[in-house]
Amino acid sequence: MSSRDKVQARRLKGFQDYHPPVMQMRYKIMDIIRDEAAKASFKAVGTPALEYSEVLLGVGGETDKQVFRFLDNGDRDVSLRFDLTVPFARYVAENQGTLNFPFKRLQIGDVWRAEKPQKGRFREFCQCDLDIVGVNSIEADMEILLCFINILGRLDIGPFTMAIGHRMILSALIERTLGIKGSEAETKALIIIDKLEKIGKDKVIAQLDEIPGAKPGGGAVLIEAIADKDPEKGTKLDKIAEILEGDTENQQVLDQLKTTVETVSELSEGNPGKIIIDLSIARGLGYYTGIGFETTIDSLPGFGSICSGGRYNKLVERYLNRELPGIGGSIGLDRLLAGLQELKKVDQDLDDQTVFIAIATDKARAQAFKLLQELRKSGLKSDIALKTNKLANQFKHANRQGYPVVVTLGDDEIANETASVKIMATGEEKKRVPQSKLVDTLKGIIKM
Amino acid sequence: MSSRDKVQARRLKGFQDYHPPVMQMRYKIMDIIRDEAAKASFKAVGTPALEYSEVLLGVGGETDKQVFRFLDNGDRDVSLRFDLTVPFARYVAENQGTLNFPFKRLQIGDVWRAEKPQKGRFREFCQCDLDIVGVNSIEADMEILLCFINILGRLDIGPFTMAIGHRMILSALIERTLGIKGSEAETKALIIIDKLEKIGKDKVIAQLDEIPGAKPGGGAVLIEAIADKDPEKGTKLDKIAEILEGDTENQQVLDQLKTTVETVSELSEGNPGKIIIDLSIARGLGYYTGIGFETTIDSLPGFGSICSGGRYNKLVERYLNRELPGIGGSIGLDRLLAGLQELKKVDQDLDDQTVFIAIATDKARAQAFKLLQELRKSGLKSDIALKTNKLANQFKHANRQGYPVVVTLGDDEIANETASVKIMATGEEKKRVPQSKLVDTLKGIIKM
Repeated sequence: MSSRDKVQARRLKGFQDYHPPVMQMRYKIMDIIRDEAAKASFKAVGTPALEYSEVLLGVGGETDKQVFRFLDNGDRDVSLRFDLTVPFARYVAENQGTLNFPFKRLQIGDVWRAEKPQKGRFREFCQCDLDIVGVNSIEADMEILLCFINILGRLDIGPFTMAIGHRMILSALIERTLGIKGSEAETKALIIIDKLEKIGKDKVIAQLDEIPGAKPGGGAVLIEAIADKDPEKGTKLDKIAEILEGDTENQQVLDQLKTTVETVSELSEGNPGKIIIDLSIARGLGYYTGIGFETTIDSLPGFGSICSGGRYNKLVERYLNRELPGIGGSIGLDRLLAGLQELKKVDQDLDDQTVFIAIATDKARAQAFKLLQELRKSGLKSDIALKTNKLANQFKHANRQGYPVVVTLGDDEIANETASVKIMATGEEKKRVPQSKLVDTLKGIIKM
Repeated sequence: MSSRDKVQARRLKGFQDYHPPVMQMRYKIMDIIRDEAAKASFKAVGTPALEYSEVLLGVGGETDKQVFRFLDNGDRDVSLRFDLTVPFARYVAENQGTLNFPFKRLQIGDVWRAEKPQKGRFREFCQCDLDIVGVNSIEADMEILLCFINILGRLDIGPFTMAIGHRMILSALIERTLGIKGSEAETKALIIIDKLEKIGKDKVIAQLDEIPGAKPGGGAVLIEAIADKDPEKGTKLDKIAEILEGDTENQQVLDQLKTTVETVSELSEGNPGKIIIDLSIARGLGYYTGIGFETTIDSLPGFGSICSGGRYNKLVERYLNRELPGIGGSIGLDRLLAGLQELKKVDQDLDDQTVFIAIATDKARAQAFKLLQELRKSGLKSDIALKTNKLANQFKHANRQGYPVVVTLGDDEIANETASVKIMATGEEKKRVPQSKLVDTLKGIIKM
């Protein structure tokens, strides 16, 4: 092939390769999530990456614009999923007759959004979701929050904060302060409030006041109330109670929220995470109806949420003449990874427990592979020379991989049914180790 | 929402949901693959689902037509990957400066092909790939075959057969019998031979004879030679040797293939799988240059291959002025799953090791969650009532889920710091079990 026929080896903007150390960490985290989910009886589910566009679109607020959407070879209007919640609602609707409710779901999968790529934000990323569908209860809310806190507590992220808001309370506050109600104006307000962290109080207040029909000065009252936070305890609730005066329904909702947060907090004793009420949590997605939450790593201020979610009591109803309330959340695996990288917690992936077998001569090959199989069966990780060039080059390769021990087989060793063993760190050599004693010898060297 | 606004909950043709029992089995298989790969020092890698179309297309023979290809929001010509090998070649080319060759890769990921959906064939499916790149050696071939056999031997598929062919030998045979050479005519012949299983000897011979320039009668000679198989030992090699007479290069390749298969066969003693030479293996994909293999489950004749691959020595060169030969293969997770389902090996996913905590009164809730956390910390799987309706309904839910034990907490139990324990299979009840002894009591009941 001449060099002008070459294809450029390049990736799409916003898409990343996962190199071995990162991939190893991803698997480690997924395994922890699967373990905690199994302990709590969540059931793993999988759904397709592609869905009919009408199934996905029209629920996600701002996300519709960011969807990878196209006509497939059969002229069907299809889209790549932008989250795992909307396809799950479709799944529940389609399988409502056979699922045993409340149904607890685990799903780990990639999602795609054509967002502007920026640091720690990708167009393809992996979400790890836990959901409970078929019940609207404080118990379900608590179980979801608790499971996420249990998972995050096992990761190497140090102290973290889970901040819980509530869509109903926030809507009531918006109505009382700005005097606006109804989905369009309210959605506008929610989208503006969602930018609080990014653009600051003053700009948010100004933008809220510009919403058609908004009560003058209402934005300031609202924002002063919800953004007045104690870093340890969250939103100060006295101002909130004042605004909600006379609204018994929402006062009850607030009391329940307090109970939820207090109980989960008590249950999390010893966990590095804390849970607080933060009524400024608006969440960008349009489908939330009850609690909403976001989780941040304390030592990475401004980094954004690594675990978010909320209650969506109307989502399954889109497809069904039946009420099936749900609550769920996701750990953003790639955001979390970006966080761990920032915290320097992603190690090199060295094979420091792997035995390497060097092959000195062609004649030794078959026996070398036989030993390889024996080592693996005994539980020892082991690799073998795949390029039987000079022994020195085989040792160089072993060294670069970080292998701690090299076993060499040549004609001499084959004749004596022995092997030579070299400990790479010290250079120490053991000659003529009987092949029958090799596994024991190696297990004495490798720290397993 | 009125019912005419409803969106139909439907999936795209050829795409499937994975329900919990299937998903559990998928994870079980993926864990075995990851375990064997780690033991052999393969490194996990991830690449994007979407790539520039030019990166993916023009290598895969028939597959180009089956690719999901579209213009993205930025008018880039993009495609969903149709396998994990071509993107891996791009990955290797892009990272050649930092990878330590020979590089051993594990990758598990979904791929998409707009094939005609049929039983056991999907438009989205998961592949589990092992590859070794950077070396062209008999050792690398053996290592790949061995690792796949080790993996498949741990799955519950019973006896299986891995059939090994060789592209170079097949090309030489095509040249000698049909008298055709060069990529276009040869590719035609390969595609026809690939259909042997599906359309039978006679049609294949007829189609081969129709290739422009083919020697009359050559098709019959070729097919009689490569398809004359012993089910235990594979292609009978005497006819092959006859055709290759005087072609020392390919006779050597054949000898090497024999050595590979014999050695791997000896190493697989005790494994339910067998490995044979089958020179009729043509493999549809255009990029193979050396050995090619397919694996079938013996008890499912006609079901097709669950693990295939081969050597691709020119693929990375598409992107690079450097030779980087490779060999690899994939386990088709969803084909394998379909096979296991056909063999009735996918069990119901029952929670028969999970404790269920029933909540009799609102007052008991906080303490019930506290016990839940204790049980989980002790390693017991445990679930809790998420709908605190009548106790009878909570028990009904526990029963449907297959939970073997239900712990009940009510006002009485709270007052005494006890719990009631019911064994579901026998109906036996233990009243007033002290909460401090609950974990021990439950561990005595649950078989862990």
